[in-house]
Parts: sequence; C-alpha cells; structure tokens
Amino acid sequence: MDTPRYTDLVQSLPANVPFVGPEEQERARGAPFAARLGANENIFGPSPSAIAAMRAEADNVWKYGDPSSHDLRIALAKAMNVAAESILVGEGIDGLLGNLVRLLIGPGDAVVTSDGAYPTFNYHVAGFGGALHKVPYREDHEDLGALIARAQDVDAKLIYLANPDNPMGSWHSGADIVAALDHLPEGCLLLLDEAYVEFAPEGTAAPVAGDDPRVIRMRTFSKAYGMAGARIGYAIGAPDLIRNFDKIRNHFGMSRMAQVGALAAFRDVEWLADIQAKVAVARNTIARIAAENGLAALPSATNFVAVDCGRDGDFARAVLAALVARGVFVRMPFVAPQDRCIRISCGRPEDMEVLARALPEALAEARG
Amino acid sequence: MDTPRYTDLVQSLPANVPFVGPEEQERARGAPFAARLGANENIFGPSPSAIAAMRAEADNVWKYGDPSSHDLRIALAKAMNVAAESILVGEGIDGLLGNLVRLLIGPGDAVVTSDGAYPTFNYHVAGFGGALHKVPYREDHEDLGALIARAQDVDAKLIYLANPDNPMGSWHSGADIVAALDHLPEGCLLLLDEAYVEFAPEGTAAPVAGDDPRVIRMRTFSKAYGMAGARIGYAIGAPDLIRNFDKIRNHFGMSRMAQVGALAAFRDVEWLADIQAKVAVARNTIARIAAENGLAALPSATNFVAVDCGRDGDFARAVLAALVARGVFVRMPFVAPQDRCIRISCGRPEDMEVLARALPEALAEARG
Repeated sequence: MDTPRYTDLVQSLPANVPFVGPEEQERARGAPFAARLGANENIFGPSPSAIAAMRAEADNVWKYGDPSSHDLRIALAKAMNVAAESILVGEGIDGLLGNLVRLLIGPGDAVVTSDGAYPTFNYHVAGFGGALHKVPYREDHEDLGALIARAQDVDAKLIYLANPDNPMGSWHSGADIVAALDHLPEGCLLLLDEAYVEFAPEGTAAPVAGDDPRVIRMRTFSKAYGMAGARIGYAIGAPDLIRNFDKIRNHFGMSRMAQVGALAAFRDVEWLADIQAKVAVARNTIARIAAENGLAALPSATNFVAVDCGRDGDFARAVLAALVARGVFVRMPFVAPQDRCIRISCGRPEDMEVLARALPEALAEARG
Repeated sequence: MDTPRYTDLVQSLPANVPFVGPEEQERARGAPFAARLGANENIFGPSPSAIAAMRAEADNVWKYGDPSSHDLRIALAKAMNVAAESILVGEGIDGLLGNLVRLLIGPGDAVVTSDGAYPTFNYHVAGFGGALHKVPYREDHEDLGALIARAQDVDAKLIYLANPDNPMGSWHSGADIVAALDHLPEGCLLLLDEAYVEFAPEGTAAPVAGDDPRVIRMRTFSKAYGMAGARIGYAIGAPDLIRNFDKIRNHFGMSRMAQVGALAAFRDVEWLADIQAKVAVARNTIARIAAENGLAALPSATNFVAVDCGRDGDFARAVLAALVARGVFVRMPFVAPQDRCIRISCGRPEDMEVLARALPEALAEARG
C-alpha cells in the first residue's frame, strides 16, 4: 500500500492544468514578453485610490482579513440594490466557481456548458467528478436555448453561461437572459459569469432579483477594476445559496489589501468610466490592425477581441506561436470552429504598436 | 424540486463556522478592541522590506500572480535544502489544508487528530465527508503515540499533528517526530502543521527528507513573518504528492503582493530574529502577568501563551468573556481539560499593559 492514499476521484484526474502562466512562458523562452495581451488583464491598471488603499493597508498585513468582508459586501449590496445576505466576496471568480461546484456537484452529476467556454470551470467540474455536457456555440455566441434544452435532457444541476462570453467577446442582452430563466428546468441553477460585464453595452448585465433562487451571478475586480493580482471577486445569489458557501469556504481566505483595494476601486466610478473608454478605443485599434492585415475582428463586449485568422485552427495556432515568439503574449480558443481566431487583450497604445509590428510578420511566418 | 440541488454531503453539513472574526465581534460590541491578542497574529508586523515590496508591487496588481510562485518556491527550496518540486506555495495553511484533505479524504475515510486541536482542519475533514477520530491530549501535549495507535486501529489515511501545538503552545522535538514516522501505519500520511515552528526552540522543526512520502509539512507567512492578511503559506512534501495538488488547486489563486512580500520577508533573517526575541520577551511578560494574578502560564514554543485559570472551562469562559468586554480580544481552547485555559497572543508592551490592567478585573468578575 503506497502512501498517501488518494481518493478514487483524484486518482482519475489528469495532471494537466487549465492555463500556463505568462511568467512560465517567459522563463521557457528566456525573455520577457514585449506586450502582455493574453490573459485579459487590465493593463491600464486599477484606480489610483485602490493602489493607495492597498499600500496603506500593507501596514496592517499582520492582521487576518475580515472573514465576512463586511465593508465591501455592504457597499456592493447597496450599489446593486440587493440585501447584504445576497453577496459573497471570495478569492476571485475562480475560487467562487470551485466552491459553487463543490456545493452542487458530486460524482456523475450533470453540468452543461458551451464547448470552448471557460476551461477553469470545466476543471472544477472534473475535479468534483461531475459529468460535463457541452453544446456548440451558435455563430460565435453561447447558445442559451441549446444550453437549457441540454440541461433538460441530462437533468443538469448547473448551467454555465458567461455573458459577455470569453473567449469570443460576444454577448446577449440581460433581458434575454432573464426571460430564459423561466425555461430553466426545475432543480437547475444558472451560473452567470459576468466577469466582463462592465465593458459591455448598457443592458447586458442581467437584471435579476437578489433573492432569485434560479441564478447566481459572479463578478470580479480582476478585469474592469484592474486587480487580477489581488484575487477578489463576488457572487450575487439568493441568501440561502450564499449561506451555504459558509459550510465549505475558506473563511479567512481573503487578503486585507484586496478587501480595501476593491472597496476603493468600486467607489471610483470616474476611473471605471475612463477604463471603459480606453478599452473601447483599444478594441477599435485591434480591429483596425486586424483589417490592415486582411483579418476580421469579431464584435466584442469585453476587454479583448477575437480576431478571425481566416483559416483553420492549425493556422491560427501557427499565428499565435509566431506572435509569442515575437514577444506578444496572446491566447486563443481551444475548440473548432472558434479556434480559427486568436484572442487579443486590449492594451495601451504602446502595446498595440507592438502588436501592429508583430502581426504582419507572424502571419507571413504562419503562411509559410 | 428546489433549486439549487446541493450534494447530500453539503446538505448534511452544519452551518456553523470555525471562528468568528474579531471585526465581527467589534461590530457586535460597537467598539474596537484595545488589544488584539486572540488570533496569534504577529502584532510586531512583517519586515519593512516585505511591506516595501508589497507597496511597490501594488503597481503591478493588474497582472495575475505567477501560478507556480516560482521565485518564492526556489528560495524556499534552497533554504530548506529540498528540490523545488517538493514545495507548494498556497493561500495560507488553511487553503493548503483544504486541498490536502480533498486529495485524500472522501466520505467515510478515517482521519485522526487530537481532541481540541485546530478546528479548521476538522472543518475541512467534515467538509469532504471524512470520519474524524480524536485522541485526548496528554499533559497538554498532543500525544503522538496515541495518534499513531488510533490511526492503526481505524485505518486512517491522514493524521494531523501541530508542532508546536495550538492552542496549548506545547511541543515535541523534531527528532521524536522523525522517529515516530517509522511507526506510522502503511498508507497513512502525517500532516505536520509547523505554523509556529519559527518561535520554537532549536530542534523543534522535524528534519524530514524532502522526498519522504510519509509526511507533509506546512508552514506559513502568517505568524513569525507577520503577514496573516496576505494569505500565503507553503507545504513541503514528496514531489509526487505536491504534483497531485496541481489536479485540484486554484492555480491562479495567489496574490502577487503576497508572493513578493513573502519572498522579501523570508530573506530578512535579521527581522525574524528580532521578532523571535520580542516574542520571547512577551511570553515572559504574559507569564509574569498571570503569576501576579495567581495564575499559571504554560510553557510555550509559539507566539501565544495558554494561561491556566485554575478552575473549569466555565470559569475560563467567564474570564474570557470579561476580558472581551474590556476590549481584550483573546480566545481559548474548546475542549476539556484544556479549556481551563485562556490563550493570549504575544503583543507589544502597550498590548501587554492593556492585558495587565484588564485581567484582575476580569478575574474578579468571573469569580463573581
């Protein structure tokens, strides 16, 4: 008998990881990236008041963070017009996703997502033994009707929907999502990942009541608020669902600096508006660079743009590899036919210039 | 059918949480604590170079942290003379504990700990459905022989041992622990929680080989390094065990500020020595204050002291309540006969003065 004795589930899990970090790629290539446009980080950074708050809080880092994230939770609840009991602050959406899956999904339980949607969600479902059912995208949009129909077929406990979508940047109206809730099978929760919603047109955020038991929304300070490295996000759901997280979550898991930084970032609405404007400009810049190279940029409601490389996945992977070799960190969809695209995060003018210089060469190399 | 549908395990879990945070107690009492001596935080704070590193890194908070925590892992491995593949950096020991339990423990799997040891470990075991078996302390020490004997009896997959112990502050020599490894039942992993080991006498840290598959050690930057609010700790274990965490951990879960702060803190060996000296002074101060009030302080190898209140648990709970009412945040053991004690964290001279003023009144009130 070997030590240790893993669970059967753990023994069955693959050792591969959802994403390789850019730092590891930099160590492998022996040089830093010239443009970091692969993880949909907000290169424009967080509000200066968030940075100032985190710096000031460094003096208090000897204290554990407040396990209830009280001040931030109250501010979020007030702004969203829901009860504080409907808000859970957690270690980024990735952490919240893992805990939600753990609450609902055991070996064999059915879950539905789109084929090519967020791999980290799939990782968590596999990690708790869930049976993942995938429906294809429809014209580069997550297909809400098909997701619900499949959930009905397989008696799913959970549907994953990102709105706006990653990696395609497409979106549905919040009203359409709310209308779809009435068609959800009984006993099926909709997990609505709104990580990018602050970049989306008015009307994209789903106007869900705070006590609606059919849906849990997740948002983050990693994207529009520019704090990916602080690890903080939040869920909005019915109080009973939120309370159940208390049975399993890491109560003292929050960084104090993340808590105060997020609160300051959330309050700086002018900075957010400025970020939204800068991202809109960068989306247009990416579309222009794509067009100059004979490629088509897909419409985007996020801080990244999927650029259609015009051929198959192998070609797009070659373009991506050639960009990475030229110091441009980008990623791409994993699944056909979305993998005809590469996914480029919005950046500053200097980042966009690096892209503009590298893309023609990368395309030439990929065309061989 | 209600939405959502929780797993049977989640439905069976209690809604109570391991600890109430001091901030929540402060909100309930409507006033801040005058001395924060309940969570074994390091009031002396982290190295100034750690604070400076975190402040500087705030500018980079828009980037996700390196999922492999490469630089810190290399530094830790070098200092401990183990392979980098034996080190895993994670979101504090609490986070690492949860992932370790998840790797090994499914419904009904046996786990052994001491009755009254770390409640958060028990919380994780319950959270994955494990069957927790408890052995009593022996003269206020965790009883290594009894833990191993019970593990043999119940075919345990995991034993929890904190060395030094929390909440009693007692300790075993590292040599005794290494010797005990030879008596571990086959298929049973020893989880050695060394959260407080930097405060302990020379020879307390267990000199375990980095590739020994029988034991996993956990350490933290929350205690001696003064960074509880940054959420960073590490595990040292056989490379195969460490690799298995990659199947389930939150790869992008680390704060960038925690990563750079921990590295700077770890390098500042002079600051650590200064903290060790200050904590030793404070332990003596707590013992003196206890003696002045006719109470006995237990020997401690940690940054807290268990003070024997001389009667039963109800009396100690009354003393604790009276201290809390006087603005002194302290905690105490949960289980008899250890619950005859209150547990007081080491603090600065001004914190110790608050304690010295409050304790006689609290005792008088408890004696009624």
